Amino acid sequence: MSLLFAVDLLGVFCFALSGALLASSKRFDILGSLLLGGLAGLGGGITRDLLIDIGVPVAFDNPAYFVAPLLAAVVVKVGLLGPGRLRRTLLLFDAGGLALFCVSGTLIALGAGLNPIGAALMGVTTACGGGLLRDVVANEVPQIIRRDGGLYAVPAAVGAGLVALSWQLGHNPDVRVGPAEIIVIVLVFTFRGLALRQGWRLPPAGPVPPRSGEVR
Amino acid sequence: MSLLFAVDLLGVFCFALSGALLASSKRFDILGSLLLGGLAGLGGGITRDLLIDIGVPVAFDNPAYFVAPLLAAVVVKVGLLGPGRLRRTLLLFDAGGLALFCVSGTLIALGAGLNPIGAALMGVTTACGGGLLRDVVANEVPQIIRRDGGLYAVPAAVGAGLVALSWQLGHNPDVRVGPAEIIVIVLVFTFRGLALRQGWRLPPAGPVPPRSGEVR
Amino acid sequence: MSLLFAVDLLGVFCFALSGALLASSKRFDILGSLLLGGLAGLGGGITRDLLIDIGVPVAFDNPAYFVAPLLAAVVVKVGLLGPGRLRRTLLLFDAGGLALFCVSGTLIALGAGLNPIGAALMGVTTACGGGLLRDVVANEVPQIIRRDGGLYAVPAAVGAGLVALSWQLGHNPDVRVGPAEIIVIVLVFTFRGLALRQGWRLPPAGPVPPRSGEVR
Repeated sequence: MSLLFAVDLLGVFCFALSGALLASSKRFDILGSLLLGGLAGLGGGITRDLLIDIGVPVAFDNPAYFVAPLLAAVVVKVGLLGPGRLRRTLLLFDAGGLALFCVSGTLIALGAGLNPIGAALMGVTTACGGGLLRDVVANEVPQIIRRDGGLYAVPAAVGAGLVALSWQLGHNPDVRVGPAEIIVIVLVFTFRGLALRQGWRLPPAGPVPPRSGEVR
Repeated sequence: MSLLFAVDLLGVFCFALSGALLASSKRFDILGSLLLGGLAGLGGGITRDLLIDIGVPVAFDNPAYFVAPLLAAVVVKVGLLGPGRLRRTLLLFDAGGLALFCVSGTLIALGAGLNPIGAALMGVTTACGGGLLRDVVANEVPQIIRRDGGLYAVPAAVGAGLVALSWQLGHNPDVRVGPAEIIVIVLVFTFRGLALRQGWRLPPAGPVPPRSGEVR
Repeated sequence: MSLLFAVDLLGVFCFALSGALLASSKRFDILGSLLLGGLAGLGGGITRDLLIDIGVPVAFDNPAYFVAPLLAAVVVKVGLLGPGRLRRTLLLFDAGGLALFCVSGTLIALGAGLNPIGAALMGVTTACGGGLLRDVVANEVPQIIRRDGGLYAVPAAVGAGLVALSWQLGHNPDVRVGPAEIIVIVLVFTFRGLALRQGWRLPPAGPVPPRSGEVR
C-alpha cells in the first residue's frame, strides 16, 4: 500500500502545480494558488471518497495531502517554473496527475469493494474531477470539454479500464501498484502527451463538424 | 418499485439529452456531450444520494444509469434531433426530466426515511441539481436563475410537495409510482410547458423591477 | 449547545443575505435569491457535514435552517437594504457569516471527533464554502480568489485555528461557544473589516507582482 500512497501523493502534487500555475496566469493571489491547487490536487480524490462512502476523506486524515498544494504554491511563487513556459508546463503536470490518479483512484475504489466498472468510473472521476473543479472555480470552461483541449478523459478511461481489467483477471488480488500498474501510468502519460502534441481531437457533439478557418 | 426505476431512468435520459444538446450548441466534443449529459442526467440523483447518505449512489451500482447519457450522446451525434429546433427541444426534454425527477426524488427520499419536508426538498434537489451542475460546468449562468428562463423550480416544488403530502396523508404507504404520481408528473410537465410558452416570470430578487426595453 | 445553534443560524442568515443581495444586483428573480441565499448560507455547512460523514446534513433535519434564506430573500425583496449601499452591505454580512461560521464549523467538526487540524480545515470550509458555491453558481470569479477581494480566508483560518488550539489546550472540552469563542468571532469580523477598509492584499500567486496603474 506504500507505493500506492506515494503514487497518489505525487499525483496530488502534479495537479496542485497545475492549479497554482493557473492561479498565477490569471493573476490571482497566493490564496487562489492554494485553493486552485488544493481543488485540483485533492478535489478528485475527495469526490471519489464521498462517492464510495468511506467516511471522512483520506485527505482530511493525513496532513501530508495538504503539504502538496502548499509546496506547489511555493514552487510557483518563487518562480521555479518560468512564466514563459507556463502553459506547456501546466499541461505537462496535468498529464502526470491524470496518469497517476486514474490508476490510484481505480485501485482505491476496488479496495473499497466496488465492482470493476464502478471502480474504473471512480478512477476517471479521481483523474478528471480535480481539474474540473479547478476550472469551474476559476470561472473557465473546463479543459476537459474544450474543443482545443486535446484528448483528456480518454487516456484516463483507458488506464482505469486496464487496471480494473487486470484486477478482474486475477492479476492484482491485493490491489497494489505493481509493474503492470506502472506501465499503465507511463502509457496514459504518453497517450495524453501524444494527443496534446499531435493535436488529436474527438469528434464534435453534434452532427455537423465545425468548419476550420476564421469565417464564422 | 419497478415503475419507479423506469420513471427515474426516463428522467435521466431526458436530462441527458438536454446536456448533450447544450454541448452540441456550444460546439463541445462528444466527451463534453457525455459529461454534460451525465451531469444533467445523474448529477441531481447523485447529489440526493450523497445527502440522504445511502452509501454508494445508485447510479454507480447499476450500469443502466450510464447507458442513458451514452444513448443521449448518440442521438444528438447522429442528428436525430435537428439543430434548428435545438433550443426548443432542449427545453422540452428539460421539462420532462424536471417532472419525472421531482416525483422519483421525493419518493426515494421518503423511502430512505426522511420527513416529508426534507423529502420534498430532496425531490427539488433531484429535479434541479443536474441542470444546475450542467450549466455550471458549461460555464453558463444556470437556467434556473436566469430572468428569461421562465418558472423552473416552482413546478418541481409543487410536484414534490404534492407527492410528499400524498404520502403524509397515508395514500402511498409503499412509496410507489401509482396513478396519483403519474398525474403529478403530467401536471408538472404541463405547468412548466405553460410557463415557458406564456413567458411566465417570477418577480425580481430586488425591490425595483427592471425596466423593459433597450434603455439601460 | 444552544448558543452554538444560535451562532450557526445567525451565520446562515448573514451569508443568505449576501446571496440574496448578489441575486438582486445581478437582476435574478426571487428564486435566484433563494437559491444563492440558500447556497451561501447552507452550502458551507452541508459540505462540512458531507465531509465529516455525519449522515443527513443538519440543515435537512431542522427546517429552521431553511427559514433563514427565506427571510433573507424577503428582507432584500421589500427593500429593507437599500440598493445604493448594496456592495458595502453585502461585504458586511459576508464578513459576519465568515466570523460566525469559522467558529461554529470548527466546533462542530471537533464534536464529530476530528483532530484539531482537520477540524480547523472544516471551519475554513464551512466559512468559505458557501460563498464559493454562491459565486460559482452565479457564474462569477469567486470573491475568495479575486485580487481585489481583500483578505478573505486568512481571518477565517486564524479564527478556526484559535478555536482548535483552545480545544487542544483543554480550555473547551465540551466544544461550546463560550466567552473565548465570542472574542474570536469579534476578532475575525474586525480582521476582515480592516482588510476590506485598508485594502489589504495577499501577494500574487506568481513571482512577479502585477503593476499598479491602468497600463496593461
